[in-house]
Amino acid sequence: MAAYFVGVDLGGTNIKAGLVDEQANVKSKFSVPTEVEQGPDRVVRNITAAAERAIAEAGANHKDVVGIGIGSPGPMSHRQGLVINPGNLPGMKNVPLRDQVAKATGIRTTLENDANAAAWGEFWAGAGKGVQDLVMFTLGTGVGGGVISEGKLLRGYFENGGELGHILVDPGGRRCSCGQPGCLEAYSSAYFMARRAEEFIAEGRPSSLKAHVGLGEMLMAEHIVDASKAGDALAQQVWDEACYYLAVACVTMQHVVNPQRVVMAGGMIAAGDYLLDRIRRHFEELTWKLLDDYPKILFATLGNDAGFIGAAGCAWQADRTGDW
Amino acid sequence: MAAYFVGVDLGGTNIKAGLVDEQANVKSKFSVPTEVEQGPDRVVRNITAAAERAIAEAGANHKDVVGIGIGSPGPMSHRQGLVINPGNLPGMKNVPLRDQVAKATGIRTTLENDANAAAWGEFWAGAGKGVQDLVMFTLGTGVGGGVISEGKLLRGYFENGGELGHILVDPGGRRCSCGQPGCLEAYSSAYFMARRAEEFIAEGRPSSLKAHVGLGEMLMAEHIVDASKAGDALAQQVWDEACYYLAVACVTMQHVVNPQRVVMAGGMIAAGDYLLDRIRRHFEELTWKLLDDYPKILFATLGNDAGFIGAAGCAWQADRTGDW
Repeated sequence: MAAYFVGVDLGGTNIKAGLVDEQANVKSKFSVPTEVEQGPDRVVRNITAAAERAIAEAGANHKDVVGIGIGSPGPMSHRQGLVINPGNLPGMKNVPLRDQVAKATGIRTTLENDANAAAWGEFWAGAGKGVQDLVMFTLGTGVGGGVISEGKLLRGYFENGGELGHILVDPGGRRCSCGQPGCLEAYSSAYFMARRAEEFIAEGRPSSLKAHVGLGEMLMAEHIVDASKAGDALAQQVWDEACYYLAVACVTMQHVVNPQRVVMAGGMIAAGDYLLDRIRRHFEELTWKLLDDYPKILFATLGNDAGFIGAAGCAWQADRTGDW
Repeated sequence: MAAYFVGVDLGGTNIKAGLVDEQANVKSKFSVPTEVEQGPDRVVRNITAAAERAIAEAGANHKDVVGIGIGSPGPMSHRQGLVINPGNLPGMKNVPLRDQVAKATGIRTTLENDANAAAWGEFWAGAGKGVQDLVMFTLGTGVGGGVISEGKLLRGYFENGGELGHILVDPGGRRCSCGQPGCLEAYSSAYFMARRAEEFIAEGRPSSLKAHVGLGEMLMAEHIVDASKAGDALAQQVWDEACYYLAVACVTMQHVVNPQRVVMAGGMIAAGDYLLDRIRRHFEELTWKLLDDYPKILFATLGNDAGFIGAAGCAWQADRTGDW
């Protein structure tokens, strides 16, 4: 008998969904608007419709679908199947999404944090395939993360484990949007890299990036990478700091979680080796030489599909462990 | 039928052993010399003899003993049951201790890292009783640690997980004995607190601690605590830094592991509230106010017994999970 899993990646703008088999092969995938402005009931209906469409588009039999996995922004609760109050899903307050979707589809459903789901996707089908201990950093507007230890997602008592953007890498340093002084996110996220560059420019330091700021353009991570490659000293400093603090976080994760692989994901990995080589170099300088327990640092391979594939993988795992 | 577990805490100088029942009640306990200078065979015989004595002294029946747990200094391997090459057990190189003790006693045996075993002791029978997610810092000459997530020890791929003394709390800062710049241990261990005070004194800063150094005495953590309480500015700075960086590490562990409790253990907790209040205060200043996911920070309760009780608890857990 064939066994399929629906994966749903619930975002602020779009719902990405697809059908996946037990070997993580994608049988269908598409994206539809979330329509969060239409209220929670509409969002739930859209997710349910997306799940049914994922099955239909793959030409699969409804009874061969073992489970649905949904990746949701936090704060949320896997254990309660509850979307609590995510910043990018206004109005989705205390929505028992897991049970609502399960009831509407007649299919067992599991709810997971979206960053955890993406990490699970890479673990199941991407850069972490074949290993049991993996740490993932997601480098986008903010810095997210996920930890898998001995083949199990690390959630923690309050279900906020793996919030790797808020590791303190420079205590007392730059204030993060979360309020803490010196978070990884305050140095290595696209948002804060741009802020940092703008602050330096405001202090009167010379930089080719000034042109963008002067034109009222939004300064992006890509601008910083390009300027850095072209030899702009300010851009180089901002970029190198971002890579350095990622290496610091890798060393800390090495000693806490001791993973076999550290996977870098998210929009910033478009910078390619210009990112990875620098993280690795700083990591080698920083880490101990006492024991030979160095994780391999590498790129994610699933791109934007990690979310829904990982969510489907969470349903696959829930089926194996009985932990829905 | 009664079920008992032998716990053995293997140290550089002494072997601490005892018999414990399923509820972690101690039925016998004692300490004997390790005699590491007599070679590995002698150490193995001493451990075997200690296990038999723990059973006999408790008046227990050999057939009611389900397992033996041994806590060993690292590097070691739980999975292989191997003591690899611990710095404080010279000559104990690649000793298959688990299988040797199991063969000699006829009792199933499990081997665990000593810091992990102590954390497991507090989890099973001490400050972590009743919770599933716990982080322990052991504050002694160095800084050790252990992490328990969803009721399971976090070991990691290379089996060096929970090395919390080597979290980078001040990247680029004080060089740790492990070689890394800015480890927690380089600020919050008894050894490095004393070094830090001596360096300040060598720089010509005034301090009542000068008397100890001048007399050729070894400066101890207790001296720093006493001088700090008496108003010595240098001692206060060293002590406050030690507490501050512990709080930094607690914030990082909050976001990575998201535990319900953080337990402080080891010799330094003799400082009592002078330690705990200060760590808590810095933690409250540093941590985010975004979510209400603060671990309770508290003291270990088993003292020096945590090692052998925890080792026995590892055998109890191995019996439940089949993971010897």
